[in-house]
Amino acid sequence: MSDLVASALHQRYKITIEYAGTGYAGWQRQPGLKTIQGQIEKAIYQYCQQETYVYCSGRTDAGVHALRQVAHFDLDEGSLKEKREKGCRSYQILRALNYYLTDDSIRILKAEKSPPDFHARFSAKKRSYIYKIISRVSPLALDKNRAWYIYKPLDLKAMQEGAMYLIGRHDFTSFRASACQSKSPIKTLNKIDITQEGDVFSLHVEAPSFLHHQVRNIVGTLKLVGEGRWTPNDVKIALDLKNRTKSGPTADASGLYFEDVYY
Amino acid sequence: MSDLVASALHQRYKITIEYAGTGYAGWQRQPGLKTIQGQIEKAIYQYCQQETYVYCSGRTDAGVHALRQVAHFDLDEGSLKEKREKGCRSYQILRALNYYLTDDSIRILKAEKSPPDFHARFSAKKRSYIYKIISRVSPLALDKNRAWYIYKPLDLKAMQEGAMYLIGRHDFTSFRASACQSKSPIKTLNKIDITQEGDVFSLHVEAPSFLHHQVRNIVGTLKLVGEGRWTPNDVKIALDLKNRTKSGPTADASGLYFEDVYY
Repeated sequence: MSDLVASALHQRYKITIEYAGTGYAGWQRQPGLKTIQGQIEKAIYQYCQQETYVYCSGRTDAGVHALRQVAHFDLDEGSLKEKREKGCRSYQILRALNYYLTDDSIRILKAEKSPPDFHARFSAKKRSYIYKIISRVSPLALDKNRAWYIYKPLDLKAMQEGAMYLIGRHDFTSFRASACQSKSPIKTLNKIDITQEGDVFSLHVEAPSFLHHQVRNIVGTLKLVGEGRWTPNDVKIALDLKNRTKSGPTADASGLYFEDVYY
Repeated sequence: MSDLVASALHQRYKITIEYAGTGYAGWQRQPGLKTIQGQIEKAIYQYCQQETYVYCSGRTDAGVHALRQVAHFDLDEGSLKEKREKGCRSYQILRALNYYLTDDSIRILKAEKSPPDFHARFSAKKRSYIYKIISRVSPLALDKNRAWYIYKPLDLKAMQEGAMYLIGRHDFTSFRASACQSKSPIKTLNKIDITQEGDVFSLHVEAPSFLHHQVRNIVGTLKLVGEGRWTPNDVKIALDLKNRTKSGPTADASGLYFEDVYY
């Protein structure tokens, strides 16, 4: 009975967030550092004086952006002064958070009431990332901090061929950060689509879940293939060696965008 | 004979420039202000200690960006210390200007030797601009300063219909800034293509030349149509009235991109 009362007073909210990660120490709150999670929790506190923990679907590193990151948090509705009728609470939260997020590199796109068993991270079935590379002679002006600048020309076909070896279920030890906390290095990559428009290369990667730095280590490796320093088959060799030192370097954070999460 | 000597010593260069206009007082050099022209002239001076005047194909206002602005300037080749063989001078200039442009919001994409009668502005046959609008509930994070944020939903079809009245040769007095220095308000608009992808609206405008603020005043007027405050036919009425106060407001500078110039 007391459980029912508690759940009636607490409401879980699901929010969808866009952010430019430049200048942030990543998603996760860390003492003394400017983080996405920290800024959102601060905005929630300023809105309703409640200390919350905001869980996201996939933590992003310093400098990484998000088009539609999803997160959840709980509010004690009993203590909230209702300014409008109940049904408008989500919209109120959307507007209030965007108002209190004084740094305009983070914007809440959507706020919805969600059932108490919804979990931004554990309920997620699939996530997707976009990685943007610009390959040209001149450094970037308009896309500075929003793409990885590569001086050398890239061979699209070779990169696509190399990527093929990574699709499916594999031991991704060679593409996993040493700090990765995942229990197993075995992951399933649903897709890596690579397209080119002029000097812009876009990699679109989809999987149920990812290892730490997995996308950036894959992109850093495919860059070697694109530059002709590796053959596409070298990607398969690196994968099979199950050794992080055998694959390419970690691609720049600035080109990575958390795109979508599916529940 | 002395003319031949002079032209042999002077070389005209054509450069193609990308810039993010945010934080700049526009293209044109002005005392005490940070401008695109001023920064480029400073970089040329640091490269070869020559004071030059850099002419562009179409001056942009404060906050306006460029994908491929074109400009020209002359160098006294006689006084230049050649570090490599003659043929590499253009490439040397490209690298040197990007090196001396300490503010990385301006990047030289290309540098080419051009004949002495080439003029970035007067030789131009056609110019194109892109205007980017994002229409959604939440303010912009990733596209902050790179698009015009509009809260209200926009009706694409109505905007396209309104734009039709502006195609062709007209007296554009209603869409001309009061400070415009053009001799005549009569201009020919080749095209206004408006496309929508999700909440992003892109306007693509092409003409031999433009009046001051013409693109932004057209966009500000079409926004009224998109929001349903004006009918498409109101655009024709405003055009026919030949009176700046009868058309819409000037659209935000941040959504405007100088795209291309054709010679």
